[in-house]
Amino acid sequence: MSAVDWSHVFATRSERMRASEIRELLKLLDQPDIISFAGGIPDPKLFPVEAIRKAQDDILADPVTAAQALQYSVSEGFAPLRRWIVDFMGKNGVPCGLDNVLITCGSQQGLDFLGKLFLSPGDTALTEAPTYLGALQAFNSYEPRYDRLILDGGNTTPAAYASAAAANGGRVKFAYVVPDYANPTGITMSVESRDKLLALAEELDVPVIEDSAYQALRFDGEPLPSILSLDIARSGGDIEKTRTIYCGTFSKTLVPALRVGWIVAAQPLIQKLVLIKQAGDLHSSTLNQMVMARVAETAYEANVARAIALYRGRRDAMMAALDASMPKGVSWTHPEGGLFVWVTLPEGLDGAELLARAIAEERVAFVPGKAFFATDSMSNTIRLNFSSPTETQIAEGIGRLGRLVARMAGDAAAA
Amino acid sequence: MSAVDWSHVFATRSERMRASEIRELLKLLDQPDIISFAGGIPDPKLFPVEAIRKAQDDILADPVTAAQALQYSVSEGFAPLRRWIVDFMGKNGVPCGLDNVLITCGSQQGLDFLGKLFLSPGDTALTEAPTYLGALQAFNSYEPRYDRLILDGGNTTPAAYASAAAANGGRVKFAYVVPDYANPTGITMSVESRDKLLALAEELDVPVIEDSAYQALRFDGEPLPSILSLDIARSGGDIEKTRTIYCGTFSKTLVPALRVGWIVAAQPLIQKLVLIKQAGDLHSSTLNQMVMARVAETAYEANVARAIALYRGRRDAMMAALDASMPKGVSWTHPEGGLFVWVTLPEGLDGAELLARAIAEERVAFVPGKAFFATDSMSNTIRLNFSSPTETQIAEGIGRLGRLVARMAGDAAAA
Repeated sequence: MSAVDWSHVFATRSERMRASEIRELLKLLDQPDIISFAGGIPDPKLFPVEAIRKAQDDILADPVTAAQALQYSVSEGFAPLRRWIVDFMGKNGVPCGLDNVLITCGSQQGLDFLGKLFLSPGDTALTEAPTYLGALQAFNSYEPRYDRLILDGGNTTPAAYASAAAANGGRVKFAYVVPDYANPTGITMSVESRDKLLALAEELDVPVIEDSAYQALRFDGEPLPSILSLDIARSGGDIEKTRTIYCGTFSKTLVPALRVGWIVAAQPLIQKLVLIKQAGDLHSSTLNQMVMARVAETAYEANVARAIALYRGRRDAMMAALDASMPKGVSWTHPEGGLFVWVTLPEGLDGAELLARAIAEERVAFVPGKAFFATDSMSNTIRLNFSSPTETQIAEGIGRLGRLVARMAGDAAAA
Repeated sequence: MSAVDWSHVFATRSERMRASEIRELLKLLDQPDIISFAGGIPDPKLFPVEAIRKAQDDILADPVTAAQALQYSVSEGFAPLRRWIVDFMGKNGVPCGLDNVLITCGSQQGLDFLGKLFLSPGDTALTEAPTYLGALQAFNSYEPRYDRLILDGGNTTPAAYASAAAANGGRVKFAYVVPDYANPTGITMSVESRDKLLALAEELDVPVIEDSAYQALRFDGEPLPSILSLDIARSGGDIEKTRTIYCGTFSKTLVPALRVGWIVAAQPLIQKLVLIKQAGDLHSSTLNQMVMARVAETAYEANVARAIALYRGRRDAMMAALDASMPKGVSWTHPEGGLFVWVTLPEGLDGAELLARAIAEERVAFVPGKAFFATDSMSNTIRLNFSSPTETQIAEGIGRLGRLVARMAGDAAAA
């Protein structure tokens, strides 16, 4: 094959399109002798297979629902599924209506659509550092500048964010956060920080994108109010006066591969997003939406309870293993839920170098932290996933990793 | 609800996002006393419901395939489905490999991704006039200029296309066509025109996007070679040396609502599109891809034969009804396949005005032609669909429409 150079016809945004390292790392999951903390995927034993199978059978056995399930449908999504989401959001402090809900192909598609809606080249997106790699990939297509959102301990004023954006030829368009047991850090944003974020967004007059991918998976303590629910409370109970755009998904609570997520926001935003959905892929799979509406109705609560029980045990196993195995100078987060722990290595110990040796010497994998930074990265960090490995694998794998870190830290100290 | 003004945070592209009239017209399909020629959707009686149900049951009954079907998967798509597409393309004059195939959520998503890959604001897309509305909606998100692609009877040179693009601040990035029984015109591009298009694209050094949504649904005569197959023949049999990007879909041949389409092109293009897919929605529904791989294997040929038989009868009924009912001065295309007929009304008779009166006076619906033009439109045109109405409805509805056109043409002549 001759290498054809297509660069002259690629859009300028194509320069931002890069393969993620995680994609390569996920392939390691298939190697049985590797203990992988690299993934970010649910344990398949949690999938409600029988509920899905029964829902599909029932839908396809009835000629009326079968014809509906297999035909083109509206871009905003299957109404009974949106109704379930309205009820779910209502129970979680977000009174809203059907016209506040758009169905997306997972929350990833929601993030892409929000980038498309808001970002012109050179505009500024405020993101935490580190933050969800998939969000950076989605936003990159629209050629933004990133500025680091610091809510606690920083001294950046709204005016400073705005003038830095203007100096770079654009304006601040939104702030993006994963408030609950974030990917990659596992950290939960306090209510005080959520309020600060809303005040900042109000001052800048921009939307807040709340990525709630893991929100339901809380192992300890009381759930915190979502940013959207706090925004509604500040806005006299009226979602139409809010600025928060909530991205939800069934990927971590029920099943990822039906690709069903949702966005909840004020109607003027949803109306634009419906047009983006129509232009983007017409609509999400009708059958998958109909199946998800039935499975959510019957299996959501029990499945979330099962996921919490399973992942809490694994989180506990990981905390215990880190305590037991990591040498002095290593610190890590204590997630109240979700799938991830963020580990900070001693200064000068590089996460990517650690990975190379971990695979070669210890048959252990994870993701180096630098993948999750839009700009300046902290290279002495790594992300560990605890939703895929068993408790036994966690104890063994973290033990191996701890010994390797100790060796490398010792070598560095001796050097 | 107070009207919130979000325009200051919307990207410049948001000005191009408009609700399509077709969306409104499709709602008329639900009114039983309306005979609608407005849709562009398959007849649900063609859906291979039992094959889909059996495939899903089999996949979900086996714990190994169930876990695979419900889990995250690779962005390029499910390998056995891509293998089926490689075989299918090979049988249709397109020798290619797995790495030349990306699975998309319908061909609509393929068009969106291609807009994203190629178009910076102000770049020029060459499109026929009229052309597929959904393509214009997809491309609009990337703020192109459109120039009219004329292959027969025009005198625009490649240099003229290029300099017009440059004068508008961009460059020509691709030519987009629906070569077989196009939406909306029903017209098939001759082999000579396909060759001219490839020569033009070569001269401009740009890709050709071949939207083959209807290609398999040929009622009469021999299939024409796809543009990609002609390109491969010109390129010494090597797909890696071609410039044609083929967008395929199962929406019109098997079922639309599983949202499974594909792109076939040279590997450097597919590699970029895989990154766009990953950033856009991670991957298409794994279960739907696995189902489609099985259903395509067992049901594709028979289902296409059934669709051709059904739609050929309806096309014939529509041709007969137009012959019998339309007054002098009305002309229409004679599609060799697909779903649509394009009707040109007498000068001065506006398609949108005809629609308003057709709904009010005759309970007949269709799409005014102007929806399908990127720039200057021919307002005395309409698109008629023949895949949804029965032969009886076609005879009755076209009869009513012909009488209304005759009345309106008579009124215009008398005025």
